[in-house]
Amino acid sequence: MTFPPLREELRGIAPYGAPQLDVPVQLNVNENPYGPSQSVVDDVAASVAAATTALNRYPDREFTELRTALAAYLNSSGGSGITPDQVWAANGSNEVMLQLLQAFGGPGRTAVSFAPTYSMYPEYARDAMTGWVVGHRESDFSLDLDAARALVLEERPTVVLLPSPNNPTGTALPPEAVSTLCAAAGDGIVVVDEAYGEFRRSGTPSALELLATHRNLVVTRTMSKAFALAGARVGYLAAAPEICDAIRVVRLPYHLSAVTQATALAALRHAAELLGRVDDLRAERDETVRWLREQGLEVADSDANFALFGRFEDRHAVWQGLLDRGVLIRETGPDGWLRVSIGTADEMAAFRQALTQVRKELS
Amino acid sequence: MTFPPLREELRGIAPYGAPQLDVPVQLNVNENPYGPSQSVVDDVAASVAAATTALNRYPDREFTELRTALAAYLNSSGGSGITPDQVWAANGSNEVMLQLLQAFGGPGRTAVSFAPTYSMYPEYARDAMTGWVVGHRESDFSLDLDAARALVLEERPTVVLLPSPNNPTGTALPPEAVSTLCAAAGDGIVVVDEAYGEFRRSGTPSALELLATHRNLVVTRTMSKAFALAGARVGYLAAAPEICDAIRVVRLPYHLSAVTQATALAALRHAAELLGRVDDLRAERDETVRWLREQGLEVADSDANFALFGRFEDRHAVWQGLLDRGVLIRETGPDGWLRVSIGTADEMAAFRQALTQVRKELS
Repeated sequence: MTFPPLREELRGIAPYGAPQLDVPVQLNVNENPYGPSQSVVDDVAASVAAATTALNRYPDREFTELRTALAAYLNSSGGSGITPDQVWAANGSNEVMLQLLQAFGGPGRTAVSFAPTYSMYPEYARDAMTGWVVGHRESDFSLDLDAARALVLEERPTVVLLPSPNNPTGTALPPEAVSTLCAAAGDGIVVVDEAYGEFRRSGTPSALELLATHRNLVVTRTMSKAFALAGARVGYLAAAPEICDAIRVVRLPYHLSAVTQATALAALRHAAELLGRVDDLRAERDETVRWLREQGLEVADSDANFALFGRFEDRHAVWQGLLDRGVLIRETGPDGWLRVSIGTADEMAAFRQALTQVRKELS
Repeated sequence: MTFPPLREELRGIAPYGAPQLDVPVQLNVNENPYGPSQSVVDDVAASVAAATTALNRYPDREFTELRTALAAYLNSSGGSGITPDQVWAANGSNEVMLQLLQAFGGPGRTAVSFAPTYSMYPEYARDAMTGWVVGHRESDFSLDLDAARALVLEERPTVVLLPSPNNPTGTALPPEAVSTLCAAAGDGIVVVDEAYGEFRRSGTPSALELLATHRNLVVTRTMSKAFALAGARVGYLAAAPEICDAIRVVRLPYHLSAVTQATALAALRHAAELLGRVDDLRAERDETVRWLREQGLEVADSDANFALFGRFEDRHAVWQGLLDRGVLIRETGPDGWLRVSIGTADEMAAFRQALTQVRKELS
C-alpha cells in the first residue's frame, strides 16, 4: 500500500471536468446562455427563504412535491400519463446515472454504450465497479441498429446507456432504435439520456412516448440545459415505479436538500419563461451548422444545443487560437473534431469571426 | 436475471431512513431544535438570489470560497492552521463518506469500525463494494484500545471509521485512541467522524488537533447538527491535501450546487448565532442524562446532542407509547436501548412526562 491508498485503477487519473476559465465567450459546457429573469430570481429567493425557516430540520427524503411537479412538466414535454411514483431526481443527472449503476450494475455486471459518446459514462461505470463495454457508431455518428442489437445480445448488459441527442455529436436516436434495444436488453435497463432532449428538431420524438411500452426503459432529463439551471444541479428520470423503488435502496438518505427542492420548484413554476429561449437556440444552432458547412467543414447533424465540427489536423491549435481570441469551446469527441455550444447571437458572431481568423492564421 | 435487475445483495433491503412522521415533538434524528433567525433567513435568501442570477452557468467545481470559509471555521472550532486545500465538502457528510470509500475502498479492500455505531457505515461500504469488518465496543461503549489496534493490524483496512462522539451511544474517543489507530493503520486512512463534535463536553479535545501529526487522519464534520442546517445538506472534512486530491478523482463534477454553496456561505457568516444554542443543548443533555439515571435507567455518557438509554424488555412498546403521546424518538442501537435527541426545554419536558406515563403503563 502507498499513501494515500487510492484504488489502483484511479492512480494518475485527472479529475473530470472542462477548464473553468474566465473568458468573455463561454461556449464549452453546453450551458444555456440566457440567465433567469428578475421574476425567476425573486421567486427562487422567496422559495428558498421559506425553506430556510425550517433548515434545522432534514428535508423531505421523498421530495414528493418536486416529483409531482417534474411529472407534470414531463407530461407537457413529450410524455403522457407519467405519475410522481415514476419520477426520481438527484443532484444533477450524473448522480442519477451513478445511482442507476449502483443499483443495477456492480462487480460482475456490464454496462454498454456506443462511442463516441459522453465521456463521463465510463467514469460512472468505474465508480460503480461495473464492467464497461463500448460499441461504435457509424461515421455519421448514427447507430448501426443490427450491430448494436448484436452487441447487447452478446454482452447481456444490465445497463445500456443511450444518449439522445448524443453528446458530443448531437445525434438523436430514432424510436425504433430505442424499442429494438429495449427488447434486446431483456430484463436489463435501457437508459435514454435526454439531457438535451428539449432541443430536438421538430419531428424527433422523445423516448418518453415509449415508457408505457417498455418497462425496462429509463428516460433521464436535466434542468441544466434547456431549463437554464446548471448551477442548481437537478437531474431526474422517468421510469417504472419498481425502478424508482430500486434506486431508493442505494440513494444516500436526504440526498436532495430542502434548498435544492425549493429552487427547482420555483424554477418549474417559471418553466414557460425558462424554456422560452429554446426556439431561439435551435434556430441559432441550425444557422451555426449551416455556416460551418459553408466554410467547407464537416458538421454532425445536431438535435442538441451544440455542434460537433471538424476535421482539423491539429484541433488543439484551433481550440487554443479561439481561446486566445476570448472564445472558449471544447476539445472533445473523436480526434480532429471540436464541439461548440450554442450561445447568444452575439456570442456566435464572435465565434464565427474568431474561427475565420484562426483558420486563416493556421492555413 | 429478474426485473428490475437489482444487485443480488440489495434485494429485500429497505431504504435507509427513520420514519418521517408529523408529530409535535420530534426527537428522532438529532436535529438542532432551534431554527434560524430572521437575519439568517434574510442573508441566505439574498445570497441565493445573487447566485440565481447566474444559475444558467455551472457552479465553481472547486467551491474555493466555501472551502476557505470552512477552513476558517474549523480553525475556530478545535483546529489550527487548517488551509483551504485541506478542506473538502459534499452534499451531507454521507456523500463525503461515500467519496472516501469510493477513493480508498473498493473490491478486495476492507473498512473497519466498532459496533454499536452509526448504521449507515455498512451501507456506505456496501455501496462502494468495500469489505466491512466490525469490532465491538465494551459494555460502556468505549473502545478496548488494545483489541481495536489488534483488529486493525490483523485486517489492514484501507479505511477505519471512528465516530467521536459515536452515534448512537454519544461516546467520545480519547486522543490516544485516535493516535494509536492512526499509527496502526499505516497507509490506510482513519476517519474520525465528528458530526456531533461541537457538542463534546469541555475537556474533550477535537481530533482536528492531531491533523498535523498524522497524515492519514481525516476529520469529518457536518453543518446538519450544531450548525442547525440539516436541510441544506453540507458535510465536510479536513485532511492532508493529497487526500482531497484523491477524492477529486471520484467526485461527480459540480457535485455542490451554486445554491448550496451560497447557502452554506451565508450560514457561516452567522456561525456565532447558529452555534449559540450549543451550550443550551449541552446543559439540556446533561440534565436529561441525570434525570434518566434518577429514574433508574442506564444511560450512556454522552458528548453529543442525544442520549442512549435503556434497557427495556420491549423497547418497541416504549417507542410506540411515546409516539402515541406525540413524542417521536429513535428505535436504534443495541436491543433494549432507545435514543432520544436533545430538543428544547419544553420538548424535553414533554419527553419526560410521556416516558413516565409509558413506563407506568407498561409496568
